Amino acid sequence: MLTSKETFAEKETGRIEAFSDGVFAIAITLLVLDIKVPRELPESARLIDALLAQWPAYFAFVTSFATIGIMWINHHRLFNLIKRSDQMLLVLNGLLLLGITFVPFPTALVAEYIGHPDERVAAMVYNGTFVVTAILFNVLWHYAAYKNRLLDPRSDPRAVQSITRQYAFGPLIYLVAFGLAFFSATASLVMNMLLALSFAIPGRMSRSVDSTHGGAND
Amino acid sequence: MLTSKETFAEKETGRIEAFSDGVFAIAITLLVLDIKVPRELPESARLIDALLAQWPAYFAFVTSFATIGIMWINHHRLFNLIKRSDQMLLVLNGLLLLGITFVPFPTALVAEYIGHPDERVAAMVYNGTFVVTAILFNVLWHYAAYKNRLLDPRSDPRAVQSITRQYAFGPLIYLVAFGLAFFSATASLVMNMLLALSFAIPGRMSRSVDSTHGGAND
Amino acid sequence: MLTSKETFAEKETGRIEAFSDGVFAIAITLLVLDIKVPRELPESARLIDALLAQWPAYFAFVTSFATIGIMWINHHRLFNLIKRSDQMLLVLNGLLLLGITFVPFPTALVAEYIGHPDERVAAMVYNGTFVVTAILFNVLWHYAAYKNRLLDPRSDPRAVQSITRQYAFGPLIYLVAFGLAFFSATASLVMNMLLALSFAIPGRMSRSVDSTHGGAND
Amino acid sequence: MLTSKETFAEKETGRIEAFSDGVFAIAITLLVLDIKVPRELPESARLIDALLAQWPAYFAFVTSFATIGIMWINHHRLFNLIKRSDQMLLVLNGLLLLGITFVPFPTALVAEYIGHPDERVAAMVYNGTFVVTAILFNVLWHYAAYKNRLLDPRSDPRAVQSITRQYAFGPLIYLVAFGLAFFSATASLVMNMLLALSFAIPGRMSRSVDSTHGGAND
Repeated sequence: MLTSKETFAEKETGRIEAFSDGVFAIAITLLVLDIKVPRELPESARLIDALLAQWPAYFAFVTSFATIGIMWINHHRLFNLIKRSDQMLLVLNGLLLLGITFVPFPTALVAEYIGHPDERVAAMVYNGTFVVTAILFNVLWHYAAYKNRLLDPRSDPRAVQSITRQYAFGPLIYLVAFGLAFFSATASLVMNMLLALSFAIPGRMSRSVDSTHGGAND
Repeated sequence: MLTSKETFAEKETGRIEAFSDGVFAIAITLLVLDIKVPRELPESARLIDALLAQWPAYFAFVTSFATIGIMWINHHRLFNLIKRSDQMLLVLNGLLLLGITFVPFPTALVAEYIGHPDERVAAMVYNGTFVVTAILFNVLWHYAAYKNRLLDPRSDPRAVQSITRQYAFGPLIYLVAFGLAFFSATASLVMNMLLALSFAIPGRMSRSVDSTHGGAND
Repeated sequence: MLTSKETFAEKETGRIEAFSDGVFAIAITLLVLDIKVPRELPESARLIDALLAQWPAYFAFVTSFATIGIMWINHHRLFNLIKRSDQMLLVLNGLLLLGITFVPFPTALVAEYIGHPDERVAAMVYNGTFVVTAILFNVLWHYAAYKNRLLDPRSDPRAVQSITRQYAFGPLIYLVAFGLAFFSATASLVMNMLLALSFAIPGRMSRSVDSTHGGAND
Repeated sequence: MLTSKETFAEKETGRIEAFSDGVFAIAITLLVLDIKVPRELPESARLIDALLAQWPAYFAFVTSFATIGIMWINHHRLFNLIKRSDQMLLVLNGLLLLGITFVPFPTALVAEYIGHPDERVAAMVYNGTFVVTAILFNVLWHYAAYKNRLLDPRSDPRAVQSITRQYAFGPLIYLVAFGLAFFSATASLVMNMLLALSFAIPGRMSRSVDSTHGGAND
């Protein structure tokens, strides 16, 4: 009556996307608040040394920035195909955003505790957050894609399957990083950084982007 | 002259919605700043214990996140029907956003004082904020819906009445949680969490979402 | 060549508006960070007393929220008529946003110093910020409206003149509040609150909103 | 299949622009958090003196605000011409945003250390951030503009070349400010401020804005 169902649904997912984009943008920008200006240095200390000593804060900042950024791109990919909304999608997307907005806390934890005896706990909390978020990505996607429940009816089935296959690896990879933290916090964080860097290597991902749109080059 | 009144009004509510979405997104993302990294632990203390000891902070974070998230969805539902704006709507929406942006403060209060002798005061401030916000939702809606003042003229009267009926419960429910805090802060907060969780149970809400759009399945 | 000049200009002011809306929404939401949770209370102190004792923080929060909110509405009114952009408009709008993003600082200053000997200085900094911002509003508007430089060519001249007349009062009113702070910080802040409240009284403002759009009811 | 490639691409860059705008708006608004309210003043101290003593914080706030603002405008200029997206553009834009979100940290550093023996280190970190960001602007632009890879096919070649020429100066200018910091932090920061002010002088920039759109007045 008010509007055709289809039109409403598209506006609906549009607003979910816009709200989610806002949350991603704020979470990624708040990360810098965890880098503290060295204050009350002892007389003999030099600022440059104090700045270099807090390298874990920069490392955690860059890694979390890259990880949230890649999650934003993945969120984007899903909502290129999801064109209808229902209550459960709202709930699942809300849980996903809960994971994203939480990231600044484990980032600050890692920045504070790398180099301390408890660094492995910090790295496990950090990677635990990513494991949960990656699982939530899969749950949201499976819910939306099951029998094309909320997808654009014109979606390319190969694009849908391609996402399903790729996203299944997310929780596994972060689980490995989580387990690695049990042995070495630094190794675990380096793996996080490598995961983020691997995204920047052209080829693999660009193919998948193409296939999302039923690219003619398949 | 400049534009037709109708067109202007739609653009107007569009910008109110976008601004409100921004405020909701920022308020929900700022909540994480209330979770503090444990610092200056005594020699014998373990990080994992310090992290577990601050469970009220995580509890408050998740509860506030869910509550603001549900309020965002409700705000959205109202503005699916509200299609004109006037000065009073701007004022009432502003008061509503004032309530939303305030939430991080009582959240931090609860995170700090649960387990302390003053925890009931903290829980009352927390639920008092939600009582006021729920009342403001009702005031805004009644103002807009009175004789269809600001609603889309094609709105389904049943959808309008359905919202009116449902929103009347909001202040009552939070008032109960507020009163409960007088006896037990924890019970009060558990009720807040259950309220948020109840939203995630399919059925009730999805019906009301359908009815908002004058769904043919009624 | 690329697009018609007109289309580009509309997109241009659209993006300026969206960016400004983001800055307004963030500044208004950051205000809550100035309300601090009372910590390390002495054994005998009660939380409720500590919360009531920091009433200046709530007062400053509400007043600043209302003032930024009204400035957002006014910004909105201007950009309903401004339909072209140039470099000077970008610079003037940037200066205006500089004033808006600065507001959380004098708000925190007032929240901290009301009731202290230095409260008048705090109130003067607070109102000084609003004087400067109100002047910047006038400068931006005069620049855009001069010979209809950047306005919609179909703008109603009466609407333009009405804004010009009304905005001229802004700096004067805040200058009075600034001067009042020299004698009494509290009186000055009460005047800020009354100014914000006066906006909520229907009638005066709603008329001017109508006239902005060349309302037929004039 | 899903949508024409062209339409998708435009939506794509639209969402990148909106996300980037959000990050710019948040980063520019977070700067105010680095201006601290003077607390626990000694009995004899006056607030006005304490406020004046922290002039480096205001100076850094205004300079960083202006610099991020100008970078926002430049980002905007690029995306007026960039109309297609690929994975590498996402990565390069992400690196650029990493630089922007980092700015509040060196701003706080400069605010804290101007007037201290280590002020030159602070000013070098500050300008180093701008050097890197300016280089990233060039890399992003060269990637997008190379053989019109991602540009609107109807782009005016003169507009493209004009941007290429102008942006090449950015890293050089900030490198000079960086080098100047080695001799004098204050001189370096004054140069940052002058760079920002130079943008506000009409003429040079407005010409280049016109040429971006293949202005008929060339």
